[in-house]
Amino acid sequence: MNPDRIEKVMKRLEADAMLVSDPYAIRYLIGRQIYPGERFLGLLLKRDEMPVLFLNTLFPFERMQGLNVVSYSDGDDICELLAPHVDPKGILGVDKVLPARFLLPMQKAGLAADFINGSIAVDKTRAVKDEEELKLMRRSSQINDEAMAIFKTLVHEGVSEKEIADQTLKIYQDLGAEGYSFKPIVAFSKNAADPHHMPDDTKLKIGDAVLFDVGCTYHGYCSDMTRTFFFQKEPDDAARKVYELVRKANEDAIAFVKEGVRLCDIDKTARDVIENGGYGKYFTHRLGHFIGIEDHEYGDVSAAFTDLAEANNVFSIEPGIYDPETLGCRIEDLVVVTKEGCEVLNHYPHEIEII
Amino acid sequence: MNPDRIEKVMKRLEADAMLVSDPYAIRYLIGRQIYPGERFLGLLLKRDEMPVLFLNTLFPFERMQGLNVVSYSDGDDICELLAPHVDPKGILGVDKVLPARFLLPMQKAGLAADFINGSIAVDKTRAVKDEEELKLMRRSSQINDEAMAIFKTLVHEGVSEKEIADQTLKIYQDLGAEGYSFKPIVAFSKNAADPHHMPDDTKLKIGDAVLFDVGCTYHGYCSDMTRTFFFQKEPDDAARKVYELVRKANEDAIAFVKEGVRLCDIDKTARDVIENGGYGKYFTHRLGHFIGIEDHEYGDVSAAFTDLAEANNVFSIEPGIYDPETLGCRIEDLVVVTKEGCEVLNHYPHEIEII
Repeated sequence: MNPDRIEKVMKRLEADAMLVSDPYAIRYLIGRQIYPGERFLGLLLKRDEMPVLFLNTLFPFERMQGLNVVSYSDGDDICELLAPHVDPKGILGVDKVLPARFLLPMQKAGLAADFINGSIAVDKTRAVKDEEELKLMRRSSQINDEAMAIFKTLVHEGVSEKEIADQTLKIYQDLGAEGYSFKPIVAFSKNAADPHHMPDDTKLKIGDAVLFDVGCTYHGYCSDMTRTFFFQKEPDDAARKVYELVRKANEDAIAFVKEGVRLCDIDKTARDVIENGGYGKYFTHRLGHFIGIEDHEYGDVSAAFTDLAEANNVFSIEPGIYDPETLGCRIEDLVVVTKEGCEVLNHYPHEIEII
Repeated sequence: MNPDRIEKVMKRLEADAMLVSDPYAIRYLIGRQIYPGERFLGLLLKRDEMPVLFLNTLFPFERMQGLNVVSYSDGDDICELLAPHVDPKGILGVDKVLPARFLLPMQKAGLAADFINGSIAVDKTRAVKDEEELKLMRRSSQINDEAMAIFKTLVHEGVSEKEIADQTLKIYQDLGAEGYSFKPIVAFSKNAADPHHMPDDTKLKIGDAVLFDVGCTYHGYCSDMTRTFFFQKEPDDAARKVYELVRKANEDAIAFVKEGVRLCDIDKTARDVIENGGYGKYFTHRLGHFIGIEDHEYGDVSAAFTDLAEANNVFSIEPGIYDPETLGCRIEDLVVVTKEGCEVLNHYPHEIEII
C-alpha cells in the first residue's frame, strides 16, 4: 500500500470518490500488479475511508493492511457488488480506460448521481516520481545504455532488421531487465525516415543509417532511448548536417529543461533548431512523452501542452528529422526535471559513430 | 471491405447505429488492421448507409470502396466530428471496450438519446467463421502441431522453463507464423498444476511432467493447443489415471460437439468424466473459449453459457486436472462445429508420450 500516493490522488480529485480500474494505476497505488484480462478489477478510493479492491476470486491475492478486499466470482453482478460502497447521490470519478461494458451498466443502475473521468488526479500524481521510482528508472536507463553498446555490435553486412531485433530481448534479460518496455525499433537506411517503422526483412548495406529506438523494464519501470549510427562509412555532408541539427535540438532542449518552464516551450526550443536549419517539415511529431510504469504516460512535451514542468517529472526528449532523401535520424534521452535543470538518465554518447 | 459481415452485424443490432471501436472488430469488418494506441478509432455502421471510419491523420490509410473516411488531427473534438453522422434522437450502440474517456464526453454532448453496449451483434457474427477464416485457422493450427513436435525436442535435464519458452518464437516464425497468439506456457512438475503458470527458472528433472500451452497467429488467426508430456520416465499409476481421465474428458467432449447442442452440455460432458473419476474439484476452469482473430473471443464452453453451438463456431476443448500431489495436466484442441459433429483442428496425438 502507498497511502501517500493515495492521499495525493484524493487531494487532486474533483469528485466524491474514485474508481480506479487501470491495472498499472492500481499497482502504483497498492504495490501489486494484477492482470485481470477481460474481468472487472477496481480500486475504490473514498475520502477518509479505507480503499476497497474489487477482485475476481480467480486471481490469488494476499491480504494487506489498509485495504479492504471484496472478492467476486464469474457471474456476479458488478453493480450490486459496488452499490453498498458508493454514494448514489455523489459524483463518482471513473478511470479513463473503464470500458463501456462496465460503465453503461453502472450508469443504468444509478450507482452514482454523475460520473466523470477522474483519471487526471491519478495521472498528475504518477507524473511526479518519488525517490523509490527514480532509483528504478535510473537503473532501467543504465541497463538501456549498456544494451545499446551491445546492440550496435550485432550489425554486419546483409543482416536484417528483424534478425537484430530478435536478439535484443535476451540481451536485456541477461543485463537484469524483465523485458521490453515496447517492441524495439530497428530501422536501416530509408526505413529510419519512418518514425513508426517496425523491423522487417530489409538487409543492411554499407553506408546505411542504423536507428535503434529501444527500451526495457526494470522492476516494472521503463526506459526508452534512440540512437542513430552509420554502418562502415562516414555520412556525407548533407546527412551530417541533419544529424548535427537533431543532436543540437536534443541538447538545446535538455539544457532548457528546468522546474517551472512550460512543456510547450521545451518542444519549441528543439523545434526552432530544426526549423532554423531548414528541416522543420521533417520533424513530424511531439518532442517527448512522459514515462514511468508505462512507456507512454499522461503528459506531453508538445506545442499543445502548456503545463509547467515539475520537479521529478520524467519524460523523453526525442527530436527527429525524417527526410527519406537525406537521412532519417532521431536522438532520444530520458530526463528527470530538477529545481536547477534536469538529470539526464541516458549516458550513451550523442556523437556521430561509425559501427 | 466485408459488406456481408457488416450486414450480418446490422441484422443482429438492437440499436439505430453502431460505433465499433475495437481494432480487431474493425479489421474483421473492413479488412485492415489499425493500431490506434490511445487515439480514437471508430467505425460507424448505419442502416442503408455507407460505413464511416474516423481515423487520426497519423495513421496512413489507403482509401477503399464502400467506406467513407473522416480524418482528424490531435486536438480535434471527437464529439464534434461524430455529431453530423449520428442521430441525436436515436439509440447508439457502442463497443464494449469503448473507454470512458470517449464515452463520457459523447454522453455529455448528447450525441445520441441513449447508448447501449452493442458489441454482442459484432461478437455473435465473429463467432461464426466463414470459409476464408476457416482456411487460415486450419493452417494456424497445422503450424501449431508442427511446432509442438519441435518444442518437445528442446527438453534436456536442467533446462529451465524460460529457456525453452524463449526459443519458441523463432520456431513459429520459421514455420511461417507471424508470432504468438498468446505468451507460451511451459510448466514443469508441480508448476503444471497452476493453470496460469508463467515460465520461470524452474529446472527440468527426470520424471517431471512437461506442459506446453502454446499458440501462434497465421495471417492474423490464432491457434491454441496444450499437451502434457513426461520427461524420461513413465508416470506412476496415480499420474497415469489422472492423465487418462483428462484425455477421456477431452475426447468424450469432442465426440459430443455438434451443431445444436448447448455449450454448457459440452462442458458437462467433460466435467462428468473428471467428477466421476474423483477429481472434480481439481478441474477449476471452464472447458473452453471461442477463438479467431483473438485468442479469447466472445463465447464460452462453460456451465453458465447455455447458447447452442452453431456450425462454424470455433472453440477450444481443454479439460485439466490440477492436483499438485499427483499431476497437473491439460489436453487442449480447437474444434470447428459442423452439422454432423466437429472438425478437430489439431492432430498432435493424445497418447501418453515420454520425451
